[in-house]
Amino acid sequence: MSEPFDAVDVITTKRDKRELGDGQIDWVIDAYTRGIVADEQMSSLAMAVLLNGMNRREIARWTAAMIASGERMDFSALSRPTADKHSTGGVGDKITLPLAPLVAACGVAVPQLSGRGLGHTGGTLDKLESIPGWRAGLTTQEMFHQLEDVGAVICAAGAGLAPADKKLYALRDVTGTVEAIPLIASSIMSKKIAEGTGALVLDVKVGSGAFMKDVDQARELAETMVALGTDAGVTTVALLTNMQTPLGLTAGNALEVRESVEVLAGGGPEDVVELTVTLAREMLSAAGRPDVDPADALRDGRAMDVWRRMISSQGGDPDAALPVAHETHDVLAPADGVLTQLDALKVGIAAWRLGAGRARKEDPVQAGAGVELHAKPGAQVRGGERLLTLHTDTPDRFERALDALDRAFVIAPTGSRPDLLPLVIERVG
Amino acid sequence: MSEPFDAVDVITTKRDKRELGDGQIDWVIDAYTRGIVADEQMSSLAMAVLLNGMNRREIARWTAAMIASGERMDFSALSRPTADKHSTGGVGDKITLPLAPLVAACGVAVPQLSGRGLGHTGGTLDKLESIPGWRAGLTTQEMFHQLEDVGAVICAAGAGLAPADKKLYALRDVTGTVEAIPLIASSIMSKKIAEGTGALVLDVKVGSGAFMKDVDQARELAETMVALGTDAGVTTVALLTNMQTPLGLTAGNALEVRESVEVLAGGGPEDVVELTVTLAREMLSAAGRPDVDPADALRDGRAMDVWRRMISSQGGDPDAALPVAHETHDVLAPADGVLTQLDALKVGIAAWRLGAGRARKEDPVQAGAGVELHAKPGAQVRGGERLLTLHTDTPDRFERALDALDRAFVIAPTGSRPDLLPLVIERVG
Repeated sequence: MSEPFDAVDVITTKRDKRELGDGQIDWVIDAYTRGIVADEQMSSLAMAVLLNGMNRREIARWTAAMIASGERMDFSALSRPTADKHSTGGVGDKITLPLAPLVAACGVAVPQLSGRGLGHTGGTLDKLESIPGWRAGLTTQEMFHQLEDVGAVICAAGAGLAPADKKLYALRDVTGTVEAIPLIASSIMSKKIAEGTGALVLDVKVGSGAFMKDVDQARELAETMVALGTDAGVTTVALLTNMQTPLGLTAGNALEVRESVEVLAGGGPEDVVELTVTLAREMLSAAGRPDVDPADALRDGRAMDVWRRMISSQGGDPDAALPVAHETHDVLAPADGVLTQLDALKVGIAAWRLGAGRARKEDPVQAGAGVELHAKPGAQVRGGERLLTLHTDTPDRFERALDALDRAFVIAPTGSRPDLLPLVIERVG
Repeated sequence: MSEPFDAVDVITTKRDKRELGDGQIDWVIDAYTRGIVADEQMSSLAMAVLLNGMNRREIARWTAAMIASGERMDFSALSRPTADKHSTGGVGDKITLPLAPLVAACGVAVPQLSGRGLGHTGGTLDKLESIPGWRAGLTTQEMFHQLEDVGAVICAAGAGLAPADKKLYALRDVTGTVEAIPLIASSIMSKKIAEGTGALVLDVKVGSGAFMKDVDQARELAETMVALGTDAGVTTVALLTNMQTPLGLTAGNALEVRESVEVLAGGGPEDVVELTVTLAREMLSAAGRPDVDPADALRDGRAMDVWRRMISSQGGDPDAALPVAHETHDVLAPADGVLTQLDALKVGIAAWRLGAGRARKEDPVQAGAGVELHAKPGAQVRGGERLLTLHTDTPDRFERALDALDRAFVIAPTGSRPDLLPLVIERVG
């Protein structure tokens, strides 16, 4: 029962701005998983890490220790290379839905372990669960077979994967220690490395609707994660992308599935198509297939074929009607002019309050709830025209959603030009 | 059940170096006492306070909130003024024992709520409990009567006094957040202000055997506490005093009682007498009796009379023989020369390991265990002479105590002069 290290020594090392040793890191993660290091000790250590940082060696070791806390998947026996994408989370970010089948249609398998939404950013699993019959839980065996047969899997991570991260993630959420770059990077990368993907493309969102509000922070996170992936033998690149305004024209579970299917059918909003194709190119290139053009597979319906097989393989009916909310409320443009701003965070909070998201892990979500946009920044609008449509099954939620949308958009005189960041801001890797 | 604030908001306010509002502070202390704010939330807040600090307003409000978490004593109905002393803790620091009766003998009542030792610094209650029959627990009523009759009380604080501090103190101990000056200051001052003393003299120890290792830190703590006391209407002064080497010639419970009785009998080590009289002068002056000279009351036996009445009033027998350890071990001077250093921390740890202190709150202490010094820095010693005598009932502890004493002292060639800080380094207030 005697422990080789002492929790208070580990905490005070980081508190006093000294480097944590490999042994200290391995022990503290393992002992926390075993319950020897208490939550109140890990949270003061997390705050010390947030305020005093960790260097590249410490972050790499921390990540390795979290991977070692659980099982590690291995898809090297598959007949094709693997690539995955991870987004740090945004509003209207449904890119995984068209992207996974698109990349699979180009000959690279996509083994994506995904999560549920918490707060104002939606979760990929919540979105897919709006498809009647679809289920998120697969065994490793089922996942392997689907990857071999269909080429793409989006499913829930099992409890055995990086259990230290699961425990620490829940702790950080209630202790004001979410925003530590070393902890964000190691949390994401421990899961992605344990997932066994051969290549990884990171979509690091920047702007009001993202975790990272400015480009410098986002770049630091991206560089940290690219270094971690590279050191672990995973070909890793990152794109910093714009999250000032929602992606596409929908935020909400079934609303986003519908939009994703439009993209797979060769239509859909321009920004969603552009980001999907850009990320697909990066994934194909990282997996050793730089010559394949994903735009073709989107255009000729091969991506849609994979989507349909991917959904049916997990029990879903790709032809079933998607749920629709019982009630809608329109927000009208107050005047003629140019829509110069439409704030992602405010739209995300409104969608969340309408029922698309959850406040606590155990809350249910409404499949049909969310926000539909009728214009994006840069568009000319006319006073009295619909700007947004709010969807919910519970109309008593409209009021709080409308509160969230207070000052969410700016309409400037006709002829004004909005000052917008490009969709893809920077590439790291 | 709806709470006016959110724990994560309070934590992130301090994490992001912003000021905590009065409402946030009042709520977080109250909600922590009620168990609404969890230990893991309070510990990450404590780490943020340690690393980002609090300003004078925040510390004052934090202290007031801790006082408000429990009851507050009131001795204003006593026929004489009150004064108390608090030491931040040192090795061989038995000053409270002769000081309380000395000040009472000079006409100022001393209502001291004291604590037990944890780690290498001894606790006043543990020392007094080595006197056969003496008991630390008094009701508020008994305390009041003893103050009126005898003039001095040293007893345990009841559970009703600053319960938020008790909970937070235990948490800080295991989360690496003990060393935060705002939290140390508010912990000490909340108890002393709630105790109801009219005047307070703080003995802030500096040096290896103290919490504060350097004068700048100690001065900051002293200034913070003096401001807190003054703002709360308690006349408060602080002395920074030397804790490079143990006070007096003993560290251990019964050993220190014996030395205290020697001081009360007009003898005892010079430094203990000097510090006792200096602190007594400060207490008398802060209580409005600057004209009374405590040296007289020590010399003519009046202080000893109060000591005897104070001990008997709490069930103790002032004439009973004090416990003596069953085993002793001498440490000899290795050569002729001048003793230039004798490290307080190492002596404190040795005494602790011999049985004088406890590692956990529930551990018992040995009344007779400890370390006796036969020379103090500055003394000429001869090779083969006794330098230290170790006392314990459990001789298997000698080895670990001797380990702690490795390089505890320096003997320099005859004629060398040790570079010593003065006993009283500085006065703040």
